[in-house]
Amino acid sequence: MNEQNTITRRSLLGAAGAAGAAGLVAGGAGGAAAAQTLHDDPTALASVGSATVPFHGDHQAGITTALQARGHLIAFDLAAGAGRKGAAALLRRWSAAAEAMTAGRVPSGDNQIALDAGPSSLTVTFGFGRTFFAKAGLDKQLPGSLAPLPDFSSDELVAAHCDGDLWVQIGSDDGLVAFHALRILQKEAGGAARLRWQMNGFNRTPGATAEPRTARNLMGQIDGTNNPKPSEPTFDRRIFVPASGSDGSPEWMAGGSYAVVRRIRMLLDTWDNLSLERQEKVIGRRKSDGAPLSAGSGGTETTPVDLDKRDADNLLAIASDAHVRVAKPESNGGAAILRRPWSYHDGFRDDGAPDAGLLFVCWQSDPLTGFVPVQRKLDSGDGLSRYLRHESSALFAVPGGAAKGEYVGQRLLET
Amino acid sequence: MNEQNTITRRSLLGAAGAAGAAGLVAGGAGGAAAAQTLHDDPTALASVGSATVPFHGDHQAGITTALQARGHLIAFDLAAGAGRKGAAALLRRWSAAAEAMTAGRVPSGDNQIALDAGPSSLTVTFGFGRTFFAKAGLDKQLPGSLAPLPDFSSDELVAAHCDGDLWVQIGSDDGLVAFHALRILQKEAGGAARLRWQMNGFNRTPGATAEPRTARNLMGQIDGTNNPKPSEPTFDRRIFVPASGSDGSPEWMAGGSYAVVRRIRMLLDTWDNLSLERQEKVIGRRKSDGAPLSAGSGGTETTPVDLDKRDADNLLAIASDAHVRVAKPESNGGAAILRRPWSYHDGFRDDGAPDAGLLFVCWQSDPLTGFVPVQRKLDSGDGLSRYLRHESSALFAVPGGAAKGEYVGQRLLET
Repeated sequence: MNEQNTITRRSLLGAAGAAGAAGLVAGGAGGAAAAQTLHDDPTALASVGSATVPFHGDHQAGITTALQARGHLIAFDLAAGAGRKGAAALLRRWSAAAEAMTAGRVPSGDNQIALDAGPSSLTVTFGFGRTFFAKAGLDKQLPGSLAPLPDFSSDELVAAHCDGDLWVQIGSDDGLVAFHALRILQKEAGGAARLRWQMNGFNRTPGATAEPRTARNLMGQIDGTNNPKPSEPTFDRRIFVPASGSDGSPEWMAGGSYAVVRRIRMLLDTWDNLSLERQEKVIGRRKSDGAPLSAGSGGTETTPVDLDKRDADNLLAIASDAHVRVAKPESNGGAAILRRPWSYHDGFRDDGAPDAGLLFVCWQSDPLTGFVPVQRKLDSGDGLSRYLRHESSALFAVPGGAAKGEYVGQRLLET
Repeated sequence: MNEQNTITRRSLLGAAGAAGAAGLVAGGAGGAAAAQTLHDDPTALASVGSATVPFHGDHQAGITTALQARGHLIAFDLAAGAGRKGAAALLRRWSAAAEAMTAGRVPSGDNQIALDAGPSSLTVTFGFGRTFFAKAGLDKQLPGSLAPLPDFSSDELVAAHCDGDLWVQIGSDDGLVAFHALRILQKEAGGAARLRWQMNGFNRTPGATAEPRTARNLMGQIDGTNNPKPSEPTFDRRIFVPASGSDGSPEWMAGGSYAVVRRIRMLLDTWDNLSLERQEKVIGRRKSDGAPLSAGSGGTETTPVDLDKRDADNLLAIASDAHVRVAKPESNGGAAILRRPWSYHDGFRDDGAPDAGLLFVCWQSDPLTGFVPVQRKLDSGDGLSRYLRHESSALFAVPGGAAKGEYVGQRLLET
């Protein structure tokens, strides 16, 4: 991407937009937290467009960033012969393009789809799949944590929509800004990589709720209550690879994380036909406000779940196969993953059922102690899994954020 | 939809949301214009969720309503044996559900997908296709204006994605609110109608631009500059059927309009490879700001197009096959259509090209003097058509809005 001769997209927004932007640009590596704060401030919603999440930092953006309204998940395969040099040049181009777009700069020769709008909290996140390393001649750098995920009994995977050498996650609060980023990154891929699969997702639009709320999924459930919070002392250790690397992660993964991506179709016609009471028992929480069923008729979303609580008939208030029981960290040796999903809706299938559900993306410092044990338990014991079909699966090593002047993956590709 | 035992969704939003909503609810039949005003007011963006477009009025909502961020276009076919009675009961159920959801009410037993959010400018618009009338035993009420659209040379139509007995257009600024409305209306269809086709669209998110702007499409062009404005004296006559009906429209269509729906795939890879200069010549406008090329290096989007203007070399400033020349009302006997499109993006095709473009929806009091002559000229003379593929086509009679206590289509179904 030609960074010379650029215009500042925000300059097109006029004085009010520019002033808003100046106050809203989040500094430093804590961009994700800052974006969260923006959404917490109702006055900031007048400037959805000018909200900016910094590209540079210790971690890549798009991991702890507040959910955005539109997302694209795209896997590419490295072209034959591209090798490490081709991959390094590609990541350099991609990083430059992502840095420019997330800051609201538009190169000359741009297709102008995103013109008039600000970056709208645009983030671009890059990852490497297991198959990348041999193709790039980097077998020795393959993280042990990229070991293939085990098979799960509820999987109905379609190979063409699984895995991939390279992964890009794009998120923005504006659909045209997200589409623009997708087109630009695809163009920058040139002959070095070709599209393998692509999924489009969505979440709430900023301001659709009067105050920020835990998201609902297309089953109507509040989804993400138990997510670890960045303020918790164990958060970094659970989500990010430490600076020295770890058992499963070489040093080039310092500050990185692993993304598990699962396209989970929901059997919504079946689900919507269940009674509300039955749905709540499947989950273990009240649907309207997310309070655990162990809280009886009281409690709130944040009331601690009491797995031992029994009702008047001495039955477990939260059933033995309820989703919250099986998914709870205490049930999985303390495993904790950061769920950061998108809903998807691709019309309807030949059988008339909606082709819709969750683009489940979860983040952890090691999938072998994060997603894998959680999903093993869900796979065998979760009452919710009867209403879900896992149709795609992928695992990516997402390196730490690039420092200024660096590109994402440089510490891997230039070792 | 059970209207008893409802809760007001807005009551969940807390005092700030409720206050905002009270100030934002647009009264009377002019709801569309009011919604436009809401988007004009930057302070209103703090309450994207509570913005409301009235269901009742002279015209249905979703025609002159400001573009919403998310849309669903859905065609249904009437079930065999449903007949006029079944259709009347269906439109009654659909109208009741649409009225409740657009006002922010949630029925008990709801799937709760939209809970926590306000209606977010939700609109639901209903129409009847040509094939509806024989099935409902209403042949005598078939509008002449529903005559099949002519074939165009650039059509590559897929029959399964064309036409349909019934049409529903859903729009909202929030993706979950729009999906919720789709699910509820599909549920209310019950055995009376089944899904024929469905398309998902999007537009800018409110606040992504610092001030309201004419939309851009996925080619990056400003799209809709020449739209007739509700303030123009000829607007109503061109867009809506008069109170006494008209040549092509029975009296039950009073206050109604005709919607032409075309799924137009854009050959974006080809288009994006053209130089900016070439793209601008194809359109006849500057891409960055939409000024007509007849204005030289000056002008703005609203500068009148001068089709006779010649440049220093005595060549037409706006080429003979430029889109603005061929599409201009003066080139089509004064025909004017109200374009109200959505962008769409359904991933990529087997050939690697993006499956993306425009869900073109245009509105007019009579397609025979609106869309048909415009498209005839575009089909033969528009330089832009080389980069477009019309893959779906449908035409619907969209009756006037329902008065309070009435349902949409009642004047047709109870004649």
